[in-house]
Order: sequence, then structure tokens, then C-alpha cells
Amino acid sequence: MSAGGFSDRLREEASSIWERIFTHPFLVEMGEARLPLDKFRFYVRQDYAYLMEFARCLGIAAAKAEERETMRTFASLLEASLTVEVEMLEGLAERLGIPPEDLRASEPAPTNVAYTRHLLYVAYSGTVGEIMAAMLPCMWSYQEIGERMGEEAALWRHPIYSEWCSTYRSKEYIDLVDLYRGLVDRFASESGASVRERMRRHFLLSSRYEYLFWDMAYGKETWPV
Amino acid sequence: MSAGGFSDRLREEASSIWERIFTHPFLVEMGEARLPLDKFRFYVRQDYAYLMEFARCLGIAAAKAEERETMRTFASLLEASLTVEVEMLEGLAERLGIPPEDLRASEPAPTNVAYTRHLLYVAYSGTVGEIMAAMLPCMWSYQEIGERMGEEAALWRHPIYSEWCSTYRSKEYIDLVDLYRGLVDRFASESGASVRERMRRHFLLSSRYEYLFWDMAYGKETWPV
Amino acid sequence: MSAGGFSDRLREEASSIWERIFTHPFLVEMGEARLPLDKFRFYVRQDYAYLMEFARCLGIAAAKAEERETMRTFASLLEASLTVEVEMLEGLAERLGIPPEDLRASEPAPTNVAYTRHLLYVAYSGTVGEIMAAMLPCMWSYQEIGERMGEEAALWRHPIYSEWCSTYRSKEYIDLVDLYRGLVDRFASESGASVRERMRRHFLLSSRYEYLFWDMAYGKETWPV
Amino acid sequence: MSAGGFSDRLREEASSIWERIFTHPFLVEMGEARLPLDKFRFYVRQDYAYLMEFARCLGIAAAKAEERETMRTFASLLEASLTVEVEMLEGLAERLGIPPEDLRASEPAPTNVAYTRHLLYVAYSGTVGEIMAAMLPCMWSYQEIGERMGEEAALWRHPIYSEWCSTYRSKEYIDLVDLYRGLVDRFASESGASVRERMRRHFLLSSRYEYLFWDMAYGKETWPV
Repeated sequence: MSAGGFSDRLREEASSIWERIFTHPFLVEMGEARLPLDKFRFYVRQDYAYLMEFARCLGIAAAKAEERETMRTFASLLEASLTVEVEMLEGLAERLGIPPEDLRASEPAPTNVAYTRHLLYVAYSGTVGEIMAAMLPCMWSYQEIGERMGEEAALWRHPIYSEWCSTYRSKEYIDLVDLYRGLVDRFASESGASVRERMRRHFLLSSRYEYLFWDMAYGKETWPV
Repeated sequence: MSAGGFSDRLREEASSIWERIFTHPFLVEMGEARLPLDKFRFYVRQDYAYLMEFARCLGIAAAKAEERETMRTFASLLEASLTVEVEMLEGLAERLGIPPEDLRASEPAPTNVAYTRHLLYVAYSGTVGEIMAAMLPCMWSYQEIGERMGEEAALWRHPIYSEWCSTYRSKEYIDLVDLYRGLVDRFASESGASVRERMRRHFLLSSRYEYLFWDMAYGKETWPV
Repeated sequence: MSAGGFSDRLREEASSIWERIFTHPFLVEMGEARLPLDKFRFYVRQDYAYLMEFARCLGIAAAKAEERETMRTFASLLEASLTVEVEMLEGLAERLGIPPEDLRASEPAPTNVAYTRHLLYVAYSGTVGEIMAAMLPCMWSYQEIGERMGEEAALWRHPIYSEWCSTYRSKEYIDLVDLYRGLVDRFASESGASVRERMRRHFLLSSRYEYLFWDMAYGKETWPV
Repeated sequence: MSAGGFSDRLREEASSIWERIFTHPFLVEMGEARLPLDKFRFYVRQDYAYLMEFARCLGIAAAKAEERETMRTFASLLEASLTVEVEMLEGLAERLGIPPEDLRASEPAPTNVAYTRHLLYVAYSGTVGEIMAAMLPCMWSYQEIGERMGEEAALWRHPIYSEWCSTYRSKEYIDLVDLYRGLVDRFASESGASVRERMRRHFLLSSRYEYLFWDMAYGKETWPV
């Protein structure tokens, strides 16, 4: 825990956005085990495409980290995102009846494109602290989603949704988010006002995109042109 | 003119998207001089914010250009975008009753953020040819909009819309787009299949964003969270 | 003047390196108007190649600047470096009997490559403050060189060396360096300890490279392999 | 093997530089087990510092790779360079009597800075094929060094030099270089003339730096200022 740190203040400022995430029909219906499977299928395919771009950001974060130890952290996260996390989604996809070639060919929906371009732009143009701040809402909000959703009794009777939720309730995942938040807090404390302000803006924008991502999946968003 | 070049093929492939642009209510109503001014005000403020990010891309394009002459082209475009173009918008804003401080404080709407992050990501991660392909739909579609809209008699009775349209019908502007298309064609001809494919994808995505940008202005888009 | 600012502290820390620059045979002999012309020719050709890469860094600095006004400053510097400064060197080259095509084909010597890659790496990976700190020794040391060299009576009897020196003694040049130092000081004051430390390291490394650049020209450096 | 591929042509063009590498006193004396240990200690510390920057390039290559499989390759190389390779050097350092804190504090010598800035600049500004071409001489020349040096009987009586050499004679290492060359060849075949020309230039410059790196270690290079 990093009580009172920079990440806590960001979380506080974004609380109304996060509340909208937790109460989004996608997550509410998922917790109550009544989310239509086609919406979840859409989500899994989009998350698979998202993960590729998220992994790119981790590669750049590794390149920009100042210390050997931080580089190692990002290198492991990158390795994990391209193996463990990808396999988790591939496993889910299989049970959802999504053929592997369809999963791999998933085209990102508009919100997915917008979110990942935001992350990638921050990765290329910003400091490592800014990249981390931009990536934090994804990692952290999933932990809180796992926490809240796990309290719903109905969820645990759903073979797929319960498995998805378990991932983000695991000790490993919670430790990872804690480590990550610790890094964000340390970078913030070493940074000046202007970098901290950019970290704040990136965190808030990513929080908005987290909400929009669930909304995109719920509405199975397509390009209007 | 660069008939039969790469840019012509991209334009051809994007023609259904571009047709949607030309027939969008924002532009139709503007040509008929009946677009509500508040929608145009929204557009001007968004375009002002967009121009800043477009200028950033030009700076990176200058940095990535291989030849001195191409660097100079981008450097002039950058200089022009931060002076001439900004002043054109500032002049329009003044006559529209938008105070300078409001214009400068314009916050980009969601579609504006998405579009510019796409451009900036391409600028940082791609080759100079990719950057140019991503920026081309903006420059080129405005030329065609100017051409078509200028045929509407009603337009020329509107003091503001006619001025806006004139900018993109000027000899200078048309020459600029021609020069620019020539560069895109040359880069494409020197590039391999994979770069050309990326140029194509960037052009199509930017074309979509051009449509979405007009739609954003027409609906005075705001963040849902 | 920005007395007591961050740049002054950097200048103080680099003073022994800068002293080595001012007392380098290249500059001493130039001030005494007895530097062999072939060494100066070598320098002019290298500086021409250097300027291209320096200009690239200005393009990226423009792209990374946060405020419109700072973007404009970099855009003008970029434009100037590709026109005014290039023409100054082209004029010198002409009087030195270097054919334009030779000037343009100048291959950077090892130290020139090393210096410009350092600048470009900082430009791509760092914040705008870091880029400015890396570029400052070039701009600033030339002002001090102009100041000191101008005190040598012999110099003013040399048609070429006196002209070169005059450029860096002009009111415009001195104002430019002052403006530039003011930006560095402001960025430093807005930055945290880790960015300031990187700015310091970049400034010191660029100072070393300034010394090595004169040494490269004096010895007409070539690649050993 | 990728006979007749692009990498073979680059290797051919660089052959006189590579010959200078193989016949450099550092490697000749090492093969004959008579290289003074202090020179090798210097090399190990420099290689340790180099590896950090090489790893950064791998992070960016992962970020720029187009296909999932290539991303994975770079992610594994990155992970390996920060664990296996670092540990190999740490083990060597220990037996050479270099305290871990000294190893970690190794300041890069001028040639090391120049070489890594070249790699990093290519990584940030270039395509993934260009990055690979720039990194190839390091990986590939070590394989050939291992091959040739291993033929010296004297080497195998030296406890440290033989171990170093074995690393680059292992089946794993040779397979890695083959895989890597295959990627370079594939990228080259998908690229146009201008990207291939840049790949060529990067490969030749890195080859030069490989020679200079051994020379730096042999002379225990320091900054002149």
C-alpha cells in the first residue's frame, strides 16, 4: 500500500469516473452473471488487440527506465503480457468459441484505437513516469473491479465470468498493482510540477478511456464510416 | 497533379468515406449559409487546438526527413501553421466573438484527441512517408471541400463562411497540396510493400477521423464522463 | 542575463572543459589569424553536416514544447538554421573555394557523428528541457568564443575568420542565446531533481563534444576503419 | 543459414572492417591467452554498461515490431539480456575481482557512448528493420569471433577467456544469430530501396564501432577532457 501517495490523489480525483466504471451495465451484468456472451466475446477480442499495444508501451517504458531494476520490472511485465496474459485470453476465447484465427485478426474498435494511441503517444513522447501514469488506470481499475465483482454470489456460478474475475483477485495481480503504484509514486516524488501535471492529465484521460472501453464493448461499437 | 500516383489510389479507396464528408450536414449547411454559428464556433475552437498538434507532427516530420529540401518544406509548413494559419483562425474567432483567451484555452473534444493522438503516434513511431500519408487527408480534403462548397451561390453571401472557404480555394493552398501529394507519391515509390501498407492504413484512418471531426463539431461533442 | 540560474551553475561546473575549448589551438590560431585554411575548410564542411542534425533536434523540440510560444521559438530557430545559418556557411564555403556540391556531400567525421547522435538521442528520448540543455553548449560557447576571439587585433585583418567571428558577436546572436538560456532556466525550475540531473549530464557531455569537435577539425579526423 | 540474403551482402561489404576486428591485438592476444587481465577487466565493465543500452534498443524494437511473433522474439531477447547475459558478465566480473558495486557503476568510455547513442538514435527514429540492422554486427561478429578464437589451443588453457569464448560458440547463441539474421533478411526483402540503404549504413557504422570498441578496451580509453 502507498497511502497518501501521488497515485492515491489521482485515484481520488478520478473517483467519479471510476464510480461510473464500476456501475457500468457491462460490469454490473457480468457480476450478476447475466451479461450476454456476445458482448463478452466482443470485449475479449478487443482486449486481445489492446494487449498488443499495451505491450508496446511496456517495451518503450523499459527503454526509458533509468535504473536497471526498473528496466527489469518492465521487461518482465512485457514478457508476461505477451505470454501469460495472452494465453489467459486465448483460453477464454477458446471456451467462448472464438476461433484462434478470429481472435488474432481482431480489428480494434474506435474507442480501442483512441485509447491505445493515447498510451502510445505518451510512451513515445513522455518520460517513464508519464507512461506509467497513463498505464495505471488499466491495471488498477481491474483490481478494484475484481474486488467488487467478486462480492456478487451470482458471479461464482458462471464458469467464464468467474474465471475472468479470479485473475484480477489473485495475490500475484494485487502485488503487481502495488509494485506498479509504488513506482508511480516514486517517479512523481522525483518529478517537478510540470511532469506531475502531465502524469495527472494522462491518468485522468486513461480513466475516461477505461469507462469508454466498457461502453464500447457493451454497445459492440463499430466505425460510423 | 500526380495522376495515377499512390495518393490517387488512396483517394480512390477512401472515396466512400470522403463522399460522407462532403455530404455531412455541417458542410452542406455551411455551403448553403445556414449552418448555426454556434456549431461553427465550436469547430473553430477545435481546429485551433488541432492545429497545435498538427504542428507538432510537422516538427517531427522535419526531423525525420532525409533530404535538406524536404526538411525545409516541413520547416516552412511548421512555421506557417504556427503563424499564418493560427492568425487566420484568430481572425475568424474575433469576428465570431470568441475572446482570444477562450480560443487559446480550447479543450479538445474526444474525437479531436483521438485524431491528433493517431497523428502524433504515427509521427513518433513511423517513417516520414507514413507521417505524410497520415496528414494528407486533412490537407487534401479541405482543398476538395473548398472546391465543392465554392460552387454554392449562397455561401458567398455569408461573410464568415465565404472567407473560410476562400482560404482553401487559394492558388497557394492548392499548390501546397500538390507539392505535398508529390512528396507522398515519391516516398511511396521509394518504399517497400510494408511501409506502403502502413501509409494506406494511416490515410484511411485519418480520412475516417476527418469525417468524425465534422460530426464532432456538428454535435458539439463532449466527454460522456 | 539570467544570473544565478540553472544554466549559470552548469556553466560553472563545465568551466574547466570550456577553458580547454577557448585555449584549443584551433581557436587560438584562428584568433591570431594564422590557422591554416585547410583546417578551417574541414571545420566548415563538418559544421554544415552538423547543422542538419542540429536542425532535426529543433524540430523535435518544437514537437515536444508544451506552450505555443515555445513551439514558435523552436520553429523559428529551425527555419533560421535551415536558411540563414546554412546560407552563412554556404557563403563562407564559396569564399573558401569549396564547391557547393562538395559542401552538401560532406560526410560527418567520427566526432561529429558521436556528437549529433548524442543530441538526437536526447531529442527523441528526453523532455524538451533536456533537449535544450544538450543543445545549449553549442550555442552558448560560440557566443563566448566570439567575445574572446574578437579581442584579438590580428583576427580583424583576416577577411574570413573575422566574418565568422562577427556572426557570433552580433546583437541578434547574443539575444538569441539569452532567450535560450532563459528557457533552460525556466524548464529547470519547473523540473524535479531527476530531470535536472539529466539536463546537467547532457550539458556536460555536449561541452565535452564541443571541445572534441574543435579537436576533430584541427586534426582533420578520419575513421580508422 | 540465410545464404545469399541481404545480411550476407552487408557482411560482404563490411568484410575489410570485420577483418580488422578479428586481427585486433585485443582479440589476437586473448586467443593466445596473453591479453593482460586489466584490459579484459576494462572490457567487461564497458560491456556491462553497453548491455544496458543494447537492452533499451530491444525494448523499442519490441514496441515497433509489427507482428506478435516478432514482438515476442524481442521481448525474450530483452528479458535474456537483462538476466542471463547480465549474470554471465557478473560471474566473469566476480572471478576477475571486480566488486559488484564497481561493475554497476561502470561509466561508459567515449567510444561506448558513441556506439550506444548511434544504436539508440536508430531505435527511436528508425523502423524495426533499421534497428535490427544496427544491432546485427554486435551479435553476429561475436559469433565469428567465438568461432575463430576457439581454434586457438592456448585459449582453452585460460580459465576466463575460454569461458567467455564458449558463450559465443554455444548452439543457443548460434541459433539466436541465425534467427536474428533471418529477421533482418525478411525485413530487407519487404522494404524499399531507401530503408535498405539506411539498414546498410547502420550496419556499416555499427561494424566500425565494433572495431572501435575493441580498440577502446585495448587502450583503456578515457575522455581527453
